[in-house]
Amino acid sequence: MLKYIRQAVQGFARRGEVRTAHGAFQTPAFMPVGTAGSVKAMAPESVRATGAEIILGNTYHLMLRPGAERVARFGGLHAFMNWPGPILTDSGGFQVMSLSGLRKITEDGVSFQSHIDGAKHMLTPERSMEIQRLLDADIAMAFDECVKYPADKKAVQKSMERSMRWARRSKDAFLDRDGYGLFGIVQGGMFEDLRMQSVRALTDIGFDGYAIGGLAVGEGQRTMFEVLDYTAHRLPDDKPRYLMGVGRPSDIVGAVKRGVDMFDCVMPSRSGRTGQAFTSHGVLNMRNARHIDDAAPLDAACGCPACRNYARGYIHHLFRSGEMLGGMLLTAHNIQFYQDLMKQIRVAIEAGAFDSFHDDFIARYAHDKKM
Amino acid sequence: MLKYIRQAVQGFARRGEVRTAHGAFQTPAFMPVGTAGSVKAMAPESVRATGAEIILGNTYHLMLRPGAERVARFGGLHAFMNWPGPILTDSGGFQVMSLSGLRKITEDGVSFQSHIDGAKHMLTPERSMEIQRLLDADIAMAFDECVKYPADKKAVQKSMERSMRWARRSKDAFLDRDGYGLFGIVQGGMFEDLRMQSVRALTDIGFDGYAIGGLAVGEGQRTMFEVLDYTAHRLPDDKPRYLMGVGRPSDIVGAVKRGVDMFDCVMPSRSGRTGQAFTSHGVLNMRNARHIDDAAPLDAACGCPACRNYARGYIHHLFRSGEMLGGMLLTAHNIQFYQDLMKQIRVAIEAGAFDSFHDDFIARYAHDKKM
Repeated sequence: MLKYIRQAVQGFARRGEVRTAHGAFQTPAFMPVGTAGSVKAMAPESVRATGAEIILGNTYHLMLRPGAERVARFGGLHAFMNWPGPILTDSGGFQVMSLSGLRKITEDGVSFQSHIDGAKHMLTPERSMEIQRLLDADIAMAFDECVKYPADKKAVQKSMERSMRWARRSKDAFLDRDGYGLFGIVQGGMFEDLRMQSVRALTDIGFDGYAIGGLAVGEGQRTMFEVLDYTAHRLPDDKPRYLMGVGRPSDIVGAVKRGVDMFDCVMPSRSGRTGQAFTSHGVLNMRNARHIDDAAPLDAACGCPACRNYARGYIHHLFRSGEMLGGMLLTAHNIQFYQDLMKQIRVAIEAGAFDSFHDDFIARYAHDKKM
Repeated sequence: MLKYIRQAVQGFARRGEVRTAHGAFQTPAFMPVGTAGSVKAMAPESVRATGAEIILGNTYHLMLRPGAERVARFGGLHAFMNWPGPILTDSGGFQVMSLSGLRKITEDGVSFQSHIDGAKHMLTPERSMEIQRLLDADIAMAFDECVKYPADKKAVQKSMERSMRWARRSKDAFLDRDGYGLFGIVQGGMFEDLRMQSVRALTDIGFDGYAIGGLAVGEGQRTMFEVLDYTAHRLPDDKPRYLMGVGRPSDIVGAVKRGVDMFDCVMPSRSGRTGQAFTSHGVLNMRNARHIDDAAPLDAACGCPACRNYARGYIHHLFRSGEMLGGMLLTAHNIQFYQDLMKQIRVAIEAGAFDSFHDDFIARYAHDKKM
């Protein structure tokens, strides 16, 4: 069981706190992605220094390597990767579903071959719960099925209904303990009636929080917001809401306005490794030659080590020279940018100023598709 | 002009301090290599945290990218890379000499093509001094020629004599300023009479310090120590002595015994990126499957973040998973190991206990060729 405390509300936007076995985190929250037990290119103390309070781990990657039972012998994922704070793990469902040629789906679950060594594995709601418990995830996700986008309504409905049966099995298999929670995942594609059926099915079962899945799959921001418009605020008020795999800063700002509390995305870390920097001036490509002689910091509004200690010209040089430090600095900067954004969002909701924050933000970056 | 203060002597081993325009460093000292303006996989504050007080930059790499004039416009290499302490730069000679097919040597200097874009460049003693001044190196190295090992005596003599003429031109071109120094480089291969001629030529010119070049080129430790036996202690007592590109821990301990004060080598950082860890138990290959379930720290005797915060099994996992954090942690650990070694050496000399430290160290790791 998790405790969720709503501290302020403005429209559908919510300011809250979630308390877990490994400490509390403030919402709206962005969770850096630590796929294989590491937020890529960062030490966990640097992740923490950005203000991040909760990170995400991937069941699929960790079950294959190093293996959930092995992580458990190391004392769980927190001890293994030296992240003492809250951890949310996904169920593995989304990722095994993406292994097109290598997996087979039945009512029982998904059998698949490891992308690492070809070994055969089976993931079911029960096994997913077991793995997430072995990892010691503070927040576990129900095991669900995802269809490719676009898909016809029949296929989406069939898949959603199976996901709801798997959600029931996930709940039954989840070992409830104080400070640990299980989230259900709303499916139903871009169809309002299916989304509503999914919301009802999940709330009938009862979860510690509710995620919205099947978005950020290529449908575009407008469509995603339409789905959120009829889904997010209909989820229980007294539980946290999590939009999976989202997204760009403007996606997050728009989703908070529509009632979402939690986010995760590889974008800030992956972009950082390839030279993209999120800044208050929009997204900069630091590989671009125009930065070569620039003595200004990446973002004068940012307090991260990259912005405090280096010129843009130096960061450009690191990427041009293939130096790892380039990816290290920009990843930390981008995670800092996202955490600063979440803090601004939280402060704005507390102050009852979120609507104008939202409108200003959207207007300011309307020209920048990467924001 | 640099100030070198000898604080203690035991046999040929010396404990001292070098004072530069950017602060002092204690000797014997190991300089982490920051080839292209970054000690690979580390932020400079992490380099400093290991106890490193001086780092090395490479003229060849920096002149090609981002260019010495550009670094100067950023306020010099210290400001550019956020390393406020002393920096030594090599002359570029060794590296352009290694570009076999792409370079031509004349009495004037070396013309070569950039390995990055094929552009033609010329490096002479005068240009090397100018570049090192633009980089704002606290310690510049004379521009010299190196022959491949093995080479016949005639070739070594001819090359050494040219290097001595270039040393003269380097000295003439060097702009002497308080806190800045120029080191001459002893050449002469594995031939005692040539090494002695080189020592005399350089001391006649007069430098702020003396390096021993042309070693660690495949001659083996025994031969290297023979050269040091007849070379190092014959260099001026009142100037620091630097053994270029060396080496393994046992090379360093043996060279200190023979009178050397300064070292640089890519080994700790390069090894770290490929999964090799220097520890008090010898060199460990962290990719090896025997570490997979090991809950012990890398080295209980080490206080670096990798050893304080993680199990060997986790570090193994990072390398198996291709996570950058593996290389980041092991590089920092290895640099820490080298700095701890230098500190132990300094303490031993101060205490008059270096001979037994040396003998214990050599005996302890005699079985481990990587140490």
